[in-house]
Amino acid sequence: MRFFSDNAAPAHPKVLEAIVAANRLDTAYDGDEQSQRLDRAFSDLFGTEVRAFWVTTGTAANCVALAALCPPYRGILCHKDAHIEVDEAGAPGFFTGGAKLILLDGEGALVTREIVTAACDRIRSDVHQVQPAALSITNATEYGLVYRANEVAALGELAKERGLALHMDGARLANAIASTGESLAEVTWRAGVDALSFGFVKNGGLNSECMIIFKTDLADEIAVRRKRAGHLLSKGRYLAAQLLAMLENDLWLENAHAANACARKLGEAAPQRLVYPVEANEVFLNVSADEAARLRSQGFDFYDWGPGEIRLVTSWDSDAQAVEKLAAAIAAL
Amino acid sequence: MRFFSDNAAPAHPKVLEAIVAANRLDTAYDGDEQSQRLDRAFSDLFGTEVRAFWVTTGTAANCVALAALCPPYRGILCHKDAHIEVDEAGAPGFFTGGAKLILLDGEGALVTREIVTAACDRIRSDVHQVQPAALSITNATEYGLVYRANEVAALGELAKERGLALHMDGARLANAIASTGESLAEVTWRAGVDALSFGFVKNGGLNSECMIIFKTDLADEIAVRRKRAGHLLSKGRYLAAQLLAMLENDLWLENAHAANACARKLGEAAPQRLVYPVEANEVFLNVSADEAARLRSQGFDFYDWGPGEIRLVTSWDSDAQAVEKLAAAIAAL
Amino acid sequence: MRFFSDNAAPAHPKVLEAIVAANRLDTAYDGDEQSQRLDRAFSDLFGTEVRAFWVTTGTAANCVALAALCPPYRGILCHKDAHIEVDEAGAPGFFTGGAKLILLDGEGALVTREIVTAACDRIRSDVHQVQPAALSITNATEYGLVYRANEVAALGELAKERGLALHMDGARLANAIASTGESLAEVTWRAGVDALSFGFVKNGGLNSECMIIFKTDLADEIAVRRKRAGHLLSKGRYLAAQLLAMLENDLWLENAHAANACARKLGEAAPQRLVYPVEANEVFLNVSADEAARLRSQGFDFYDWGPGEIRLVTSWDSDAQAVEKLAAAIAAL
Amino acid sequence: MRFFSDNAAPAHPKVLEAIVAANRLDTAYDGDEQSQRLDRAFSDLFGTEVRAFWVTTGTAANCVALAALCPPYRGILCHKDAHIEVDEAGAPGFFTGGAKLILLDGEGALVTREIVTAACDRIRSDVHQVQPAALSITNATEYGLVYRANEVAALGELAKERGLALHMDGARLANAIASTGESLAEVTWRAGVDALSFGFVKNGGLNSECMIIFKTDLADEIAVRRKRAGHLLSKGRYLAAQLLAMLENDLWLENAHAANACARKLGEAAPQRLVYPVEANEVFLNVSADEAARLRSQGFDFYDWGPGEIRLVTSWDSDAQAVEKLAAAIAAL
Repeated sequence: MRFFSDNAAPAHPKVLEAIVAANRLDTAYDGDEQSQRLDRAFSDLFGTEVRAFWVTTGTAANCVALAALCPPYRGILCHKDAHIEVDEAGAPGFFTGGAKLILLDGEGALVTREIVTAACDRIRSDVHQVQPAALSITNATEYGLVYRANEVAALGELAKERGLALHMDGARLANAIASTGESLAEVTWRAGVDALSFGFVKNGGLNSECMIIFKTDLADEIAVRRKRAGHLLSKGRYLAAQLLAMLENDLWLENAHAANACARKLGEAAPQRLVYPVEANEVFLNVSADEAARLRSQGFDFYDWGPGEIRLVTSWDSDAQAVEKLAAAIAAL
Repeated sequence: MRFFSDNAAPAHPKVLEAIVAANRLDTAYDGDEQSQRLDRAFSDLFGTEVRAFWVTTGTAANCVALAALCPPYRGILCHKDAHIEVDEAGAPGFFTGGAKLILLDGEGALVTREIVTAACDRIRSDVHQVQPAALSITNATEYGLVYRANEVAALGELAKERGLALHMDGARLANAIASTGESLAEVTWRAGVDALSFGFVKNGGLNSECMIIFKTDLADEIAVRRKRAGHLLSKGRYLAAQLLAMLENDLWLENAHAANACARKLGEAAPQRLVYPVEANEVFLNVSADEAARLRSQGFDFYDWGPGEIRLVTSWDSDAQAVEKLAAAIAAL
Repeated sequence: MRFFSDNAAPAHPKVLEAIVAANRLDTAYDGDEQSQRLDRAFSDLFGTEVRAFWVTTGTAANCVALAALCPPYRGILCHKDAHIEVDEAGAPGFFTGGAKLILLDGEGALVTREIVTAACDRIRSDVHQVQPAALSITNATEYGLVYRANEVAALGELAKERGLALHMDGARLANAIASTGESLAEVTWRAGVDALSFGFVKNGGLNSECMIIFKTDLADEIAVRRKRAGHLLSKGRYLAAQLLAMLENDLWLENAHAANACARKLGEAAPQRLVYPVEANEVFLNVSADEAARLRSQGFDFYDWGPGEIRLVTSWDSDAQAVEKLAAAIAAL
Repeated sequence: MRFFSDNAAPAHPKVLEAIVAANRLDTAYDGDEQSQRLDRAFSDLFGTEVRAFWVTTGTAANCVALAALCPPYRGILCHKDAHIEVDEAGAPGFFTGGAKLILLDGEGALVTREIVTAACDRIRSDVHQVQPAALSITNATEYGLVYRANEVAALGELAKERGLALHMDGARLANAIASTGESLAEVTWRAGVDALSFGFVKNGGLNSECMIIFKTDLADEIAVRRKRAGHLLSKGRYLAAQLLAMLENDLWLENAHAANACARKLGEAAPQRLVYPVEANEVFLNVSADEAARLRSQGFDFYDWGPGEIRLVTSWDSDAQAVEKLAAAIAAL
């Protein structure tokens, strides 16, 4: 019974069906009929004109966009636990040509207006220090916490005041939206987000993520940067098909609701052990090494997350029975 | 009836079946069971220990490897019509951090020992001029010509003498092998090739190419570079499955034979019009604009390739009847 | 008697005096009094508002500016014999983050509207091919030929039509101006030049070149890029002092006239041997290996320049007697 | 009376004399007689074979070397207050092609074996996290503290165990050596340092620093990287002459002794206010804003350094009387 990553889950059957259905001759790269429908489909979803680009990884989605938002000689403000800082092998440095990640503190990997302001104010405005050009936030955060629309808007306003672009790593944006019930529009472009990595792979996709560009005048540059990074697949229709399948009947939202519900159940099993409130599909618990071993001996698989902490991740296909069992096992510790 | 690119063809049914079969929970990234089998499978295929990495594009396969073979301050010798020079949006410059492509002439995009030697000799050996570090060749070439093992070996020998790494862009290597009947080993590592982009997508794959590293001490660096470029997909099993399906019963070779046979038929229809001999699955013909229009009016789709020339590409699934019709139409021009 | 490079000449006494005079405490970097006067001094010289930055090499002057004019994913059109292509160790690739030099033909390293147009037209306007963002020309060229103002203007007009920035490598701009008598303004910003490397070191300076930015909205970025490349010296006053000394009483022009006059004399000694007309301070002659050896045996030092050709370079301090002797020796061959 | 930076001081008369004496025709770049003597001169000074390269800034000295010590996809461990992190405009990211600075804590910008070990141990050894390739320390540190030979050796040993290169930013190494009386050899290569930025400009030079490469097999690469970054000046003799003048009769050490003595005097004026012990030529004092204003009103010029702190820097030419006056003024606060 695996709770170590939503990356490990299989693809949703409808995603797979869409790939199979796409298996016919069409134009190469993103000239095919389905790739050509993405802008329209995501513009409708977000309620504004966007440009939507398939890519195969969150790292690519984050870093192609960041390279367009931040020149090589400036910096990107982000939380010190952000995925781009911690788990992308230095990809932001590679894609931007050496821009600097300027690290922020913040509980649960959430950043606030105050934190960003203080970080900016610490930087002397001269040629010796790297000046920030962008702010990147993750929603839901690396600790499963969720930004509300008004929190993003406060950051968006600050970004505008400071001349910063605003980027959102939404590897688990679906879970965030499912959690708050706020709209995609409110949490993103209406709050000032310029570019978004909209994650689908952790949420039932096979290998297609989506880069959403709200600042559409960057789209042509981004198309070139995607190609130049080797991310323009020659049979793009199989990626586009996945995204369209995820949008159909809001499958993306349905999957996220399912994953969140399982996480909630796990959290409710031991509220006193929670390191952070459960707001999306990740559960961080204070569990000793002994206790962790006991859980593992019962067949549960998960990651340790620092000393005395474990991380449980649920996914769109989490088995209800396995969740019940794990909840019971945690409660019984 | 489309003859404009093998990129446009669908995936082979067995590839699709393999993807569907892989749709179960497994470890993320390339920790899954199928990804873990690649080194073994390709080592067996090549008859030597190799490291095999899935990537989703030929550009990524070429440029991740080239970045490991050439430092930023040196150069890569390649034909002026090479895909890395002409059609990858400057990806080699991006991946290497600014290494220079040093361009070579050569009929049909083939380079020879003499051509490479002359190019090297033109470079002053000082800090002002960019010194070459690698030679990249394409097999089959961008004009559908095929290097024989002894030709590659001559280049490999020269590369060794000059301290150059040898890279092969094998986007259509399967077609080359199907054409000459020579072995993969002879044409690659035995001839001195250090790294190979082994193409599968044009040959019936869906979105998985394979980077083969013969110089295995570079493999760890390459694993990092792949990740850093956003090319380590989180559900790698769907890529590995494609490659394993292509290897099973030599499907890759069977597909290439099929494509080559169609191309041969087209070439035989008008030998006097051939710009280059047909050695793989591409046919370049001298055809006037009027004649091209006439072919198009009969429902044939293809690219113009310079003034008075057209390019026809066949693929693993080329329809025998369509090929017959096109052959007849060409003969009748 | 050395005629191999104007780089080998000493600094002009007035330049040295200015350095000595600057040897007092002042603010670090470019905050000193003399550095602060540069914008004004060069704006007056050019008759328009410019931003002027000292740097210590022509490579830095060229490539810091080019990095601001061309993003990493686009290209710079330049002659195939341009210094940035041939003699800067790939610096454009380094500074731009991998932009491509797109090479042009042209007699004597001069490019024309026709040549640039043809090169642009060969590039498909898609994401697969690198799109040009800038045109860089050298004046005087690497073969000592000079662009007239109307020739630059024709290129400037084309650049504007095509959306290209126009860069001038003016390592020997002083010699060009001395040669034609046209004004600095006409040959540069009035003709559409956006950024200029204005060379002083070959012309009597010690180690200070000047980057002139006509497109002043790039100046802040350029200031950062200069620092980031390690080119913001901490005692900048010694560089500024050199430039101000060169401007005083048009010393730069006087020096260039002196160098040009010597070159002219050498050219007149054997007009039938000239590979190119002598328009600045370089003389390219058809001279056999035997003849070259004979000249060397008489104590003349110079470079061979391809088979059967030699290059003679004169400088601000070329010895009149040595020039006479060399002219006689050439005539006597 | 200025105490804000040793960068502001003039050049030592002997340095200037050497420049004037070098003002004759010689070979360009670093082919001149004096540049050619550098390897020998510095090898003698350090008591081992080194390669010595002039460059004009500490940023260039640091970052050219770091680029040779750390590939783009790895990281450089350094103190969070290190000059390369704080004051070089992101130059390490530019020169290395995007390598990451991994920041360390440590009192007074000193790092220890324990600190480095802990930082390394926090990094998971996989492709997702950036692995360190080098450790860079500053001696004297940014707070004027000095590493003893045995402290460097402890770091050198650790570096070797961990497979890290060891780099020393010695912008004020002369002051460190003058302070401890230990030998250059003990503090550098014998302690495991692979590359050193040996600062001269703050210590009486005009614009020549020296990059010392102990790991001499990197020297050829470094020569190319220097050129490629635009740091190979065409009249290098004026830089070499400065370095040779600084070595003659140990002028570098004499100058450092002079600066240190002045700093010591200032420190002794108010030992209770010292933020750090005075070990080189920088004095950090707890001084309130009011007190600072009072000092300024008496004609003393210096930088604030965080709230309630000021920094005083002395230099080779600090005026004894001004130092006395400042010492008295501080004591009288």
